[in-house]
Amino acid sequence: MAKDMTLLWGSGSPPCWRIMIALEEKNLQGYNQKLLSFEKGEHKSKEVMEINPRGQLPAFKCGDKIINESCGVCFFLECKYKTQGTKLIPDCEVGRAQILQRVFEVNALVEKSSSVIYYNWMVPEGERHDSAVKRNKEALTAELKLWEGYLQASSGFIVGKDFTLADVVVYPNVAYLFHYGLSEQRYPKLAEYYKGLMNRPSIKASWPPTWKNAPKQETLKDI
Amino acid sequence: MAKDMTLLWGSGSPPCWRIMIALEEKNLQGYNQKLLSFEKGEHKSKEVMEINPRGQLPAFKCGDKIINESCGVCFFLECKYKTQGTKLIPDCEVGRAQILQRVFEVNALVEKSSSVIYYNWMVPEGERHDSAVKRNKEALTAELKLWEGYLQASSGFIVGKDFTLADVVVYPNVAYLFHYGLSEQRYPKLAEYYKGLMNRPSIKASWPPTWKNAPKQETLKDI
Repeated sequence: MAKDMTLLWGSGSPPCWRIMIALEEKNLQGYNQKLLSFEKGEHKSKEVMEINPRGQLPAFKCGDKIINESCGVCFFLECKYKTQGTKLIPDCEVGRAQILQRVFEVNALVEKSSSVIYYNWMVPEGERHDSAVKRNKEALTAELKLWEGYLQASSGFIVGKDFTLADVVVYPNVAYLFHYGLSEQRYPKLAEYYKGLMNRPSIKASWPPTWKNAPKQETLKDI
Repeated sequence: MAKDMTLLWGSGSPPCWRIMIALEEKNLQGYNQKLLSFEKGEHKSKEVMEINPRGQLPAFKCGDKIINESCGVCFFLECKYKTQGTKLIPDCEVGRAQILQRVFEVNALVEKSSSVIYYNWMVPEGERHDSAVKRNKEALTAELKLWEGYLQASSGFIVGKDFTLADVVVYPNVAYLFHYGLSEQRYPKLAEYYKGLMNRPSIKASWPPTWKNAPKQETLKDI
């Protein structure tokens, strides 16, 4: 059905996962896909570079059209398969406006999560400062409170009472936070959202294989 | 004509400028707008916070629909006024795929520009390192070479030979780089793009007022 599409992906990468959820929601199973290993540096392989010259995953192709930006792929699929599977962008203007807001706003969540989770990876040893770690953690806490509030005001999804493009884009990042040890007690609405969608078919079918039976991470336990 | 829209903006902010260009391209002049001063902290005013609780500009409203993410606003306007003014997203799938790729890929350019331009603003004095400054500059140089290559392969616009959503989103960031002293000699395709679109009516009409007759900045002169 989706034999003209190819996805090279890495397990646990929120951008890769977004595309996989979108493909499931649009009933586009059966695409060519290959799981690559970040640890082995396979995201820098010739195979990836030919599609994504940045040497990053995802690398995605639909026929001869290449889009590697995960949100771009989601928009592309929704536009191409508007009437197939889940309608990810509603016709209603109010809903559409809120969804567009959250889809782009997720960048702030990604940036603030990364600056905490990847601090030691991004900052060489001689440049690390406890004051920076503290500031990054405070920024993430403030950011998470905003999203906790958004979920408080909605009905089980990021926007309103239906699964939309906002969930496709935001859910993998929320799951990522809990995978890295975010407290379910301190962020009850985020936890409810995380657990509430865990068994949705599109999400279950694309759950990162390396997360299954993985030991609990503690990176975010004090956030 | 666009009396139901309100834009609170700051001069020189690429996200604010994107919305203004999109509004011009879609023939949506006559919206309510107010220029606020970052220097005076007006982006943290009650007036802004009521629309954008992050206390950031732009703050944008269309009727009772609020979208503050600039790219979200551009998608919203293109969708609402599909047949009015410039067609910003083509029906052609090849073009659409390329445009979506660049619209989201611009985040890498923004992030790498900001880490150089705002280093002293973002990093407290005691945490600054020459090695970090050098690394950030190298990352920006590598990023700029990618965009130089994209322009080499296109025909005067970010994608192909027409002005699209990719230009609405990317142009303000390119102009920003040159405002901060990027070398026109070292980045000739970016410079050609910058100067080539400077007099396009939508861009000319929305040119940042504080940039007119401003002294030349030198922050990026050695990039």
